[in-house]
Amino acid sequence: MNMLERLFIIKVGGNIIDDQEKLSSFLNSLSQIFGASSSLPFRGRGLLVHGGGKIATEIGNKLGIESKYINGRRITDDATIDLVTMIYGGLINKKIVAQLQSFNCNAIGLTGADGNIIPATKRPPKKMSNEKGLSELIDFGWVGDVDSPTFNVESLKLLLGNGFTPVFAPLTHDKQGHILNTNADTIASSLAVALSPFYDVRLIYCFEKKGVLENVKDENSVIHRITKEKYKQLLDDQKLFAGILPKIDNAFAAIDAGVHEVLIGDATDLLQNTTDKTIGTLITH
Amino acid sequence: MNMLERLFIIKVGGNIIDDQEKLSSFLNSLSQIFGASSSLPFRGRGLLVHGGGKIATEIGNKLGIESKYINGRRITDDATIDLVTMIYGGLINKKIVAQLQSFNCNAIGLTGADGNIIPATKRPPKKMSNEKGLSELIDFGWVGDVDSPTFNVESLKLLLGNGFTPVFAPLTHDKQGHILNTNADTIASSLAVALSPFYDVRLIYCFEKKGVLENVKDENSVIHRITKEKYKQLLDDQKLFAGILPKIDNAFAAIDAGVHEVLIGDATDLLQNTTDKTIGTLITH
Repeated sequence: MNMLERLFIIKVGGNIIDDQEKLSSFLNSLSQIFGASSSLPFRGRGLLVHGGGKIATEIGNKLGIESKYINGRRITDDATIDLVTMIYGGLINKKIVAQLQSFNCNAIGLTGADGNIIPATKRPPKKMSNEKGLSELIDFGWVGDVDSPTFNVESLKLLLGNGFTPVFAPLTHDKQGHILNTNADTIASSLAVALSPFYDVRLIYCFEKKGVLENVKDENSVIHRITKEKYKQLLDDQKLFAGILPKIDNAFAAIDAGVHEVLIGDATDLLQNTTDKTIGTLITH
Repeated sequence: MNMLERLFIIKVGGNIIDDQEKLSSFLNSLSQIFGASSSLPFRGRGLLVHGGGKIATEIGNKLGIESKYINGRRITDDATIDLVTMIYGGLINKKIVAQLQSFNCNAIGLTGADGNIIPATKRPPKKMSNEKGLSELIDFGWVGDVDSPTFNVESLKLLLGNGFTPVFAPLTHDKQGHILNTNADTIASSLAVALSPFYDVRLIYCFEKKGVLENVKDENSVIHRITKEKYKQLLDDQKLFAGILPKIDNAFAAIDAGVHEVLIGDATDLLQNTTDKTIGTLITH
């Protein structure tokens, strides 16, 4: 595993994207890792996956596009897929690319449709119980479920191998001509899995806290390393707050599928978290 | 010149983009030229440059973004550059990419910021005479002027050489972190000039008529070939309508800068116009 070249797959979400100053500082850090002018010892290849942000809701409101939910699940109708294609694939993605370029990092903005890198399947309607406890068939609309083995890994390797930093919007496509809305965390972990046979992948989730906390009220109680054994122990001791469990479960799912390590940490700690002396939570086998 | 591989650089504008049926049929033709499953004898490499469309104005109106003009020149203010980044770089570009992918053509959607392929200079304010005939300094806002020699040709050649069909939105960047609005015709001709040392380039402008007409009222009076000599003669005979002159002048400018040939023809004739038996107007040395 250690003979493979290091690759960082970094996911950043709305809390950074919505804050111009934080975003700029984050992209500056990113360019120090991936940029042509980087002199850092831990300079490496990598890619960024970004989520949405409040701007999509704001512009949607102005355009009279309502967020639709069924049983708490967001539905992506025709108007919403156009909205997120504009905002995620256009406004947010191209602003990030232009800023990375200004920091001398050779970013290339992509959706899963570009180069057919992330083909996906439109989610079939699912039977779910409604608020009355009755089973109901829910159509989620233009939502895509990805499948790592079908990823077009060769195209990605070509881009990575030629010094590009791919920047993915959370959009895929169905190969039938439609863009699909896809969860950014899932895209990041799926890309990490698909690229793991070729790179020593560290998947980094930028988070609003320093890492996974042993005491949710104490920012300094970061658990620096979680193995499966440690996780079992933390669960037994009921030390973890419920909200973090799906993130850790997903991290172990990625690791079981071949990803070397997963890091959960603050966006402002990105540089340190790409070294061997991580200050977030490193999740490993 | 003929030893170089043929490359088609195709520009398509709003008249096709705004019409879902025409666009789909046009992209189907394009995929027959560039697509992996093409069996046409004239299959070749190529790229597409698309313009805007009415959808930008429509969504702009809904968002309360007014089109601003000074002396008939459109001004790209902060709100307008965000609007065109969303619509050109997001909505239009990604819909075209997803459709081309459905036709088995490996499209990759780009702006000039992606891969730093088209760096540009923000247009400096220009002295122009206003409606009262007085000289006035006009700031066009976030508008970019491109310069073919600074294009990142190596990145483009890498993509073309690996079977991608680049699809460019009419956007560039200033290397300072800003997206710039840039005329699609100019992007197409500048790309043609930049790639001409490496390919035998035919630059194709999709037009609302079959070609340049000798009699503007007669659709069948297409002039099939215009050389410089022929152009001089047509001008002497006052056979051309004024509106077409800038297009022909730009075509000769591209040819003088190294482009092999320029074709002006109907989008629906695209397949025929990529053969040796063109039915539009072929402009050559």
